[in-house]
Amino acid sequence: MKGIAYIISAPSGAGKTTLCRMAAAHFPEIRNSVSYTTRKPRPGEVDGRDYWFVEDEAFDRMVEAGEFLEYAGVYGRRYGTSKKDLESLLDQGWSVILEIDVQGADKVRQTLKGGVYIFILPPSLEACEQRLISRGKDSPEDIKKRLKIAEEEIRKAPLYDYLIVNDELDRAFEELKSVMIASRAATMRMEGRLMELFGDILKS
Amino acid sequence: MKGIAYIISAPSGAGKTTLCRMAAAHFPEIRNSVSYTTRKPRPGEVDGRDYWFVEDEAFDRMVEAGEFLEYAGVYGRRYGTSKKDLESLLDQGWSVILEIDVQGADKVRQTLKGGVYIFILPPSLEACEQRLISRGKDSPEDIKKRLKIAEEEIRKAPLYDYLIVNDELDRAFEELKSVMIASRAATMRMEGRLMELFGDILKS
Repeated sequence: MKGIAYIISAPSGAGKTTLCRMAAAHFPEIRNSVSYTTRKPRPGEVDGRDYWFVEDEAFDRMVEAGEFLEYAGVYGRRYGTSKKDLESLLDQGWSVILEIDVQGADKVRQTLKGGVYIFILPPSLEACEQRLISRGKDSPEDIKKRLKIAEEEIRKAPLYDYLIVNDELDRAFEELKSVMIASRAATMRMEGRLMELFGDILKS
Repeated sequence: MKGIAYIISAPSGAGKTTLCRMAAAHFPEIRNSVSYTTRKPRPGEVDGRDYWFVEDEAFDRMVEAGEFLEYAGVYGRRYGTSKKDLESLLDQGWSVILEIDVQGADKVRQTLKGGVYIFILPPSLEACEQRLISRGKDSPEDIKKRLKIAEEEIRKAPLYDYLIVNDELDRAFEELKSVMIASRAATMRMEGRLMELFGDILKS
């Protein structure tokens, strides 16, 4: 069976990264799609495991050749998902979680067939703010900016297939897990299995 | 939030009844939709709990008045699901499992909006046969007839939203449970919750 691409977006502070890590740990068939980036490796990061670290020129060439399913520039550094890498994983039966922002998801929706689009919602914008404050990585100004962006992102939530409110981590993970399992049982993804089991009946 | 109608079909011997019972026991929001029937109550059966037991004439009147979402005659006795009863349960937020055959599901599909259609597949026709033999309720002739019908039913499997292969009960139940949880998180059913949490952002 072909793998499934789960496209997961959320405003910052909604707890997406934690949920995605839990899902990757839970499902043995999840493989990481290694992104390309133009930023320099941080201590401990390994090329080909954490990212493919490339120069700006190489990244430009990949953009021009249409090799990215989606790419985005964040603070001057760019990140992109290779279409070929992803499709090769899916063809081998691995499933992949793409943690990407709403613009990235828009691009993926235009090119990738059969992905499952999941939006993680915070229970409120105040909850996002609290999480951003307590993780202590952003200045008050940055937090304000992130919350403004969060509003824009939440407006795109209706474009996704599933909405998961992360009010309680265990409950939200239960939902995410269920969406991932249910997606495998969706008829469009079971056609191969159905033919395998009952092809003689269906064709007669 | 409005409840969800889960329409579950399967050929005889696929293990549908067991799976539906497990689901009803697991989810506190599942209510039984009490069917109408023209057959006589068996010892221990209670009117209004197991079935609404009605005379043929009353059943005919309900058919003529279009009160049934679906109805079917089985061995001369008829069974029907009341549209009003079901909708009233769903409006109150209860979810309902409708264990019905593929013809019944076809009728429900034409009238009910937003149902989730699940088909339980046996791993093989031989497995159905084995289960029918070991439950010891049917004659060899009946079993042959049921297997012929099973083939016809399996041909309709692609019309359902989800296909669950009941090769191993625990695994199949995990899938059924996941489909039921995931259905609640489907965007079409989360619109109310989304407006409740972020209506001010979405409307601005």
